[in-house]
Amino acid sequence: MPNPTAAILIIGAEILSGRTRDANMHYLAGELTRIGIDLMEVRVVTDDHGAIIEAVNALHSRYDHIFTSGGIGPTHDDITADAVAAAFGVPLAIRDDARALLAAHYERTGLEFNAARQRMARIPGDATLIENPISAAPGFSIGNVHVMAGVPNIFQAMVASLLPHLTGGRPLLSQTLRIDQGEGVIAGPLGDLANEFADLSIGSYPFIQNGAYGSNIVIRGTDPGRIDAAMARLAALFPREGA
Amino acid sequence: MPNPTAAILIIGAEILSGRTRDANMHYLAGELTRIGIDLMEVRVVTDDHGAIIEAVNALHSRYDHIFTSGGIGPTHDDITADAVAAAFGVPLAIRDDARALLAAHYERTGLEFNAARQRMARIPGDATLIENPISAAPGFSIGNVHVMAGVPNIFQAMVASLLPHLTGGRPLLSQTLRIDQGEGVIAGPLGDLANEFADLSIGSYPFIQNGAYGSNIVIRGTDPGRIDAAMARLAALFPREGA
Repeated sequence: MPNPTAAILIIGAEILSGRTRDANMHYLAGELTRIGIDLMEVRVVTDDHGAIIEAVNALHSRYDHIFTSGGIGPTHDDITADAVAAAFGVPLAIRDDARALLAAHYERTGLEFNAARQRMARIPGDATLIENPISAAPGFSIGNVHVMAGVPNIFQAMVASLLPHLTGGRPLLSQTLRIDQGEGVIAGPLGDLANEFADLSIGSYPFIQNGAYGSNIVIRGTDPGRIDAAMARLAALFPREGA
Repeated sequence: MPNPTAAILIIGAEILSGRTRDANMHYLAGELTRIGIDLMEVRVVTDDHGAIIEAVNALHSRYDHIFTSGGIGPTHDDITADAVAAAFGVPLAIRDDARALLAAHYERTGLEFNAARQRMARIPGDATLIENPISAAPGFSIGNVHVMAGVPNIFQAMVASLLPHLTGGRPLLSQTLRIDQGEGVIAGPLGDLANEFADLSIGSYPFIQNGAYGSNIVIRGTDPGRIDAAMARLAALFPREGA
C-alpha cells in the first residue's frame, strides 16, 4: 500500500516579506519522513481570506493530509480559522470544550480571559481539538486539514500532540555517500545507477569545500535492502581516494 | 500603479524530505521587498516532471514574475529545464552562447567539458541567459519565468545578476514596535488601529522572553508618512512602562 500523502500550507505575510525565516516546514518535513507520510507539496500564502480558502480547497482534495501553520492567535490578522471554516462551509463559533481549556489556563496564570482571548476558542463545526501544552489555545483538525499555530515551539508541541493520532506508512529511509568529485564528473555513471534502481530516489547535492567541488549522493526509499544494494554499487563506482 | 507581483517555486526532494532546510525563499523574499516586487505565494514541489510543469503553468499566468530555484545541474535528477521547456512548448537544446560560457569556464579551470556538463548548456527556445559568476552554468528567463540554481551561493549570485533587469515598484517599508504585553492584552485596540489604517498591513508576532509574553507589531506599507502616523498612534496606545 502506498504511503499517505501530505501538503503543508504556511500562512503569514511575515514569511513572504522576508521578515521572518520559516522554521516549521523543515521541522514537519522531517517528522513526516520519520513516520512514513510523504510530503508532496508546500505552499506559503499571505494572511488573506481568499488566498487561504483557495489553497485549502486546492490541497485538501488532493492529498491525504494538509497541515497549516500560522494565523490562529487572538489578533485581527489571525484569520486562518475563519478561512478554513469558510472553505468547509461550516460555522465558526466559540465552543465550550475549547473555552474550558482556555478558561482553566487563564485562571491558572491569573490573566484576564478577555474577548480577544475568547476568540481563540472559536472552532469550526465539529473539528477535533489539537492540544497545545504551551499556551492552551488549541489547534484543530477538520476533515483532513490540521490547523496549527505559527510560533515554532507551539507548532512543534501541536505536531507532537497530533502525529500519534495519524496512520503513517513505511518511513522514508536514506543513506548518504560523500564523493569528493564534482557533479560534472560523476553524472554519467550516477544516472545509469539511478536508471537501474528506478524504485529508489537518488539525489545529488553539490558542495564546494576549501575551493574543491564535491557531491553528496542521497539514496532514498522504503526498502532498506535495496538501499544497501544501491549504496554498495555507488561506493564501488566511486572508491575513496587512498582507500 | 500597483507593484509587480511574484511567486517563488522551489524544486527539490531534499527540501520535502526534511534533509535540507531551504534558504533561498527567505533570501529572495527580502530582496523582492527591497525593490518593490510583491511576493504573493511560494510553492515547493519535488523533482517530478509533471509536478514542475503544473506549478509553472498555475503560477506564470497569475503573477508578473516566477522565480524558480533548483534542478539545473548536470545530474539525472536535474530536470527543471526540461519541465520549463515543456510548460512553454518550446524545444530544449544545447545553445551556442551557453556552451561558449561553459567551455571557457572549463578551459580556465582545466576540467573536461564532458557530456554531463554540456547538459547544462541546454536552454529552452530563445530564453535570456542569467549570469552565474560562480560556476558559469547559466540560469535563464523565459517569458516571466526566471530559472535559477538551488545551491544558495549560486542562487544569490544569479539573483544579483537578474534583479537589476526587472522593473520594481514602491519598496515595501516596515517599522516594528516591541510591546512587552501578550497579544491577548493588546488585540482589541490593535484591531481598531488596523481598521483605521486599512491601507497598511499591521501584523502582530508574539514571543516569550524570560517567561513573559510580548508582541512585535510590524506596520508595513509603501507610504512612509502613513507608517509614521500609525506608529505614533501605536506608541501612544501602548506606552512603555516606566517611560
